[in-house]
Amino acid sequence: MIRVALLGASGYVGGELLRILHAHPEMEVRTAFGASGAGKRVGDVHPHLGLAYPDLVHAAWDPALLAGSDLIFAALPHGETQRLADDLLSPGIPIVDLGADFRLDSAADFEAWYGEPHQRPDLLGSFTYGLPEFYRDRIKASKRVAAAGCYPTAANLALKPLIDAGVIETIGIIVDAASGVSGAGRSIKEANLFPEIAEGVAPYAVGHHRHMPEIEQELGMAAGLPVTVSFTPHLVPMNRGELVTMIVEIAAPLAALRTCLAERYVIEPFVHLLPDGVAPATRMVRGSNHAVVNVFADRVPGRAIVVVAIDNLVKGSSGQALQNMNVMLGLPETAGLRQAPLFP
Amino acid sequence: MIRVALLGASGYVGGELLRILHAHPEMEVRTAFGASGAGKRVGDVHPHLGLAYPDLVHAAWDPALLAGSDLIFAALPHGETQRLADDLLSPGIPIVDLGADFRLDSAADFEAWYGEPHQRPDLLGSFTYGLPEFYRDRIKASKRVAAAGCYPTAANLALKPLIDAGVIETIGIIVDAASGVSGAGRSIKEANLFPEIAEGVAPYAVGHHRHMPEIEQELGMAAGLPVTVSFTPHLVPMNRGELVTMIVEIAAPLAALRTCLAERYVIEPFVHLLPDGVAPATRMVRGSNHAVVNVFADRVPGRAIVVVAIDNLVKGSSGQALQNMNVMLGLPETAGLRQAPLFP
Amino acid sequence: MIRVALLGASGYVGGELLRILHAHPEMEVRTAFGASGAGKRVGDVHPHLGLAYPDLVHAAWDPALLAGSDLIFAALPHGETQRLADDLLSPGIPIVDLGADFRLDSAADFEAWYGEPHQRPDLLGSFTYGLPEFYRDRIKASKRVAAAGCYPTAANLALKPLIDAGVIETIGIIVDAASGVSGAGRSIKEANLFPEIAEGVAPYAVGHHRHMPEIEQELGMAAGLPVTVSFTPHLVPMNRGELVTMIVEIAAPLAALRTCLAERYVIEPFVHLLPDGVAPATRMVRGSNHAVVNVFADRVPGRAIVVVAIDNLVKGSSGQALQNMNVMLGLPETAGLRQAPLFP
Amino acid sequence: MIRVALLGASGYVGGELLRILHAHPEMEVRTAFGASGAGKRVGDVHPHLGLAYPDLVHAAWDPALLAGSDLIFAALPHGETQRLADDLLSPGIPIVDLGADFRLDSAADFEAWYGEPHQRPDLLGSFTYGLPEFYRDRIKASKRVAAAGCYPTAANLALKPLIDAGVIETIGIIVDAASGVSGAGRSIKEANLFPEIAEGVAPYAVGHHRHMPEIEQELGMAAGLPVTVSFTPHLVPMNRGELVTMIVEIAAPLAALRTCLAERYVIEPFVHLLPDGVAPATRMVRGSNHAVVNVFADRVPGRAIVVVAIDNLVKGSSGQALQNMNVMLGLPETAGLRQAPLFP
Repeated sequence: MIRVALLGASGYVGGELLRILHAHPEMEVRTAFGASGAGKRVGDVHPHLGLAYPDLVHAAWDPALLAGSDLIFAALPHGETQRLADDLLSPGIPIVDLGADFRLDSAADFEAWYGEPHQRPDLLGSFTYGLPEFYRDRIKASKRVAAAGCYPTAANLALKPLIDAGVIETIGIIVDAASGVSGAGRSIKEANLFPEIAEGVAPYAVGHHRHMPEIEQELGMAAGLPVTVSFTPHLVPMNRGELVTMIVEIAAPLAALRTCLAERYVIEPFVHLLPDGVAPATRMVRGSNHAVVNVFADRVPGRAIVVVAIDNLVKGSSGQALQNMNVMLGLPETAGLRQAPLFP
Repeated sequence: MIRVALLGASGYVGGELLRILHAHPEMEVRTAFGASGAGKRVGDVHPHLGLAYPDLVHAAWDPALLAGSDLIFAALPHGETQRLADDLLSPGIPIVDLGADFRLDSAADFEAWYGEPHQRPDLLGSFTYGLPEFYRDRIKASKRVAAAGCYPTAANLALKPLIDAGVIETIGIIVDAASGVSGAGRSIKEANLFPEIAEGVAPYAVGHHRHMPEIEQELGMAAGLPVTVSFTPHLVPMNRGELVTMIVEIAAPLAALRTCLAERYVIEPFVHLLPDGVAPATRMVRGSNHAVVNVFADRVPGRAIVVVAIDNLVKGSSGQALQNMNVMLGLPETAGLRQAPLFP
Repeated sequence: MIRVALLGASGYVGGELLRILHAHPEMEVRTAFGASGAGKRVGDVHPHLGLAYPDLVHAAWDPALLAGSDLIFAALPHGETQRLADDLLSPGIPIVDLGADFRLDSAADFEAWYGEPHQRPDLLGSFTYGLPEFYRDRIKASKRVAAAGCYPTAANLALKPLIDAGVIETIGIIVDAASGVSGAGRSIKEANLFPEIAEGVAPYAVGHHRHMPEIEQELGMAAGLPVTVSFTPHLVPMNRGELVTMIVEIAAPLAALRTCLAERYVIEPFVHLLPDGVAPATRMVRGSNHAVVNVFADRVPGRAIVVVAIDNLVKGSSGQALQNMNVMLGLPETAGLRQAPLFP
Repeated sequence: MIRVALLGASGYVGGELLRILHAHPEMEVRTAFGASGAGKRVGDVHPHLGLAYPDLVHAAWDPALLAGSDLIFAALPHGETQRLADDLLSPGIPIVDLGADFRLDSAADFEAWYGEPHQRPDLLGSFTYGLPEFYRDRIKASKRVAAAGCYPTAANLALKPLIDAGVIETIGIIVDAASGVSGAGRSIKEANLFPEIAEGVAPYAVGHHRHMPEIEQELGMAAGLPVTVSFTPHLVPMNRGELVTMIVEIAAPLAALRTCLAERYVIEPFVHLLPDGVAPATRMVRGSNHAVVNVFADRVPGRAIVVVAIDNLVKGSSGQALQNMNVMLGLPETAGLRQAPLFP
């Protein structure tokens, strides 16, 4: 069995990785670092996982404990992976970072959006951006991957192929999104209390959400020129799930958009164009690594509506991280990720 | 006391009208028609209202029972008010229709969007569009009002003044919306079952929702030329509340949009510009007739993000209907509508 | 207008009092103390109340600011009212305490259940227990009232009359309860985060919830001898509402229980026996000061099932506090409390 | 691969079986009968399963289509399996019935609780009661199993061993329960609409729920004499999950109850005694076949509180059915059932 070390094991993303890895036929979690849960059994921190990990105890961070690990997942708050970089990277163990620290190519962008200078700009180029549907070969050749963020994953799975194919314009892109509350992590603050969220909906980080530059970086790469999008995320009273609705200006007949996505994704195990007219819904992918996408005519001539649904905790973070690691290690890409979605 | 007759009393909108009217100092519901609840007490159809209406029994439709009513609210499925028009209108009793039958000026538009010919195109011009913030004088002079729909109310409260003032462009308007489930009414179908909706989010009626022509009609009137918008509504797992996020191209500095709305609404009792930077949320208005609005800079130069939150069952239907009726009857516009929102 | 001072204005209970008082025809909140919100406008702490209280600013605690107040509501964490007792009580202003500090007659009981010695046992006897349906005359004659807790209110509204009338046994009483999350207050802890609670149900404080001695004190008073109950509360994924299901051994035919409650509550404005066979549900009372109760035959001979529903934030705390104050001041008991429940 | 035929494939229980079977290493669904979905692809009826079953089409009932099946799951409304019994049983294919038709030993009990005479009393004795933790050997020897109901499973997993061991009394048992909405099935009725259920809690079928005789039958068997329980189920606003809280009179020290369950379940793969003091919660088992149980001291001397949590759609129906079938076929009992629970 491949021995896994996990940093950030106490949060929702860390817990989800533990859940998913439990089903992986060739990986086994040996070390789980979790600041808030150090010294506690997994079941005390994640009550649903007590049965899956009866003996695993969360450890306080200690780089010596990485010895003997075959791979590392880092699910830390932004900024942390930078600070631990020497310890994490020096052993040369394959690592997937689930945080934002090494997703942007530009240290200046990082500082502009995260409000603090990047601690290790020297390392930015050494991480491969972890969206396997687009960078499979590079990921395979990498020992360091920065798994794509949740909103960028959802948006770019739809938009990158359309831009690549030239069937939509690169200007005028509107990205409107909705996420379940687990997307905010397990951070203990008033805004995340049940009564603040249940029975309501609201936008947040309006005009300045940190996933914007990540979306734009990838779209810009597809377009070969800078792309700027309007991005407005909303918080929805549900645990998990992410829906992204995009309005785009088309540069080809609507059918060409469908054809583009159909051809692009027919061989992908986790991305699926729905039948014509069927609206993506988060309930279609809950608990799974799947993404569903569809394209609709807008009434306004020259525009289309593109919709993608993922589970923010799976394809939006933990599942994607594992998918990346499978690619890095040469395992079947779907290993540990074959669970059907859960509904209702 | 002014004697009220209510059609469609068994649905959520009808129930909400009963709730609100219970607090009205000068109105009293004498007759409540409700097909599915005919013969039952109010408390059997709306268990929360049994104490407020201990003696009122839902009646099957019978025009003779309108005699003695001082005003009529019709909260019927679309198409029904048309069919009952002779009976409803011949007594000359002031009427507010909460349905869609008389909101559009054009019978052709009605047929195009509702899939059936309008039964009474002759009456279309006789109803005043019931958005008091814009048509107060006309409503005051009317005996027939078609209360504005929920999404059009939310969108147009923000967009009409901005178009009127010429501070936004009339092209390129994107309207992205989210509604609680009561917006679908009390109709008994699989898609509205609790497990189909809880823990998920999805768009619906993508590209062809029936509120689109109503939004466009009002914006076109403000612009003096046809306006077409992209409109995508989403269903969110909550009972009530509606949030509309709009992306607009600006024709003036952002501050001018805020000033426009601030000046426009400073005297309005139910529409409020929030402090700079505060995002509208449905929890701010739940159970009340208030609308909250705000304007944000978009990162894309030349665009702004405008957000409005209302309660779809109050300002989006029943409260708005009462507000219209107050205006028609010369009562204080806020009579029966002064309840503070409910949170959590 | 009667001038109100409110302590604990930043929490859910405090916010609910502000909401309800906004509808009171004769009271006006002049001073709102709120530790976590000091210096902020009401609308910054309670976004739904910004429109109702545009000018009120939360104050840090300062006894001098009580001057000029005609009455005090204290909605503080347990222990706090004791500590502030001298300042609060010395002016002789009528006070309703919404916390647990002065509900129990016995300082020893307080210490046993709250884990710390009572700071002011000398004052215990000076507060009247605030359940108006049973202590109306005493409350009228009091200047200090300790409003009844939420679970004790629900349970005792049903059980006290039945014990008084001798139609149920005083042994073998089982109280099983469920509450919405607002009952846990606005305290910022992991257990109250949205994802910890949504889509799940669990019991809490099993066998040792602090409302147990309060239930037993009141039932013991009715019985004239000590009564011990089994009490198990559960946390349910909803914002507000409380349901109490009780299994009792009957000492009379079942019909006698219904008759007892029917006769006892026919004149009460806020407590209602439902028609035979109708199960109380929290949606019947949401946002209102009403309680609904019913009695059912159990299959086990000699037992009955008694069910009560209230809104924990209204009849279970803020509404009840106002009801008490209305009685103390000789106002109509329903003043400010006539709102119909909100559904859906 | 073992070929599976499934009746009732369109409902939530049927969908859950499809989800679980998708992960079974040795079974494959060949035939899915579903009245409401006949002629539709699986993905049209269960949008989350379109990717797992791209080619399977729901069939209208036709006994000829059973040919070639190696086993049958029947997830039909009560009464239906009786009516189809000849067709279902004559081929001699191993069958697990998930409905209530063959759970009760007595035709009279069936008629009393289900309001209609049993159509095939002759077959009652031919089905083994499908609770593998108690009837493993008999199930192994059976070709017909009636999988235990959800509430009886939860209650009896705790109570049967305690009665068997003589550590609790057989009188005075109180069973208070809460279930998610999927427990009501996918039946389209007003009471199951989202707005009727969200933000509220209520008991249902008070004093006459049909799972009562099933609980009592099993407890009576353990006790060797008739056992009668008080049973009150509640509907909670969540999709899935079931929590049962029981008050029992103890016939031994509390520790003996814990020891009894610890010893009884130490070797069971799906039933787990939690650490002392940890309250079972449905979030611990969501989406899995696990049951968690714990025992607490009650304040009332001589009583204990016993709590069990399961997922009503897994251990409460579909997972349990598969567990039974695994036993019948001599497969590993956990085959297809090893998924960790999903949280949040």
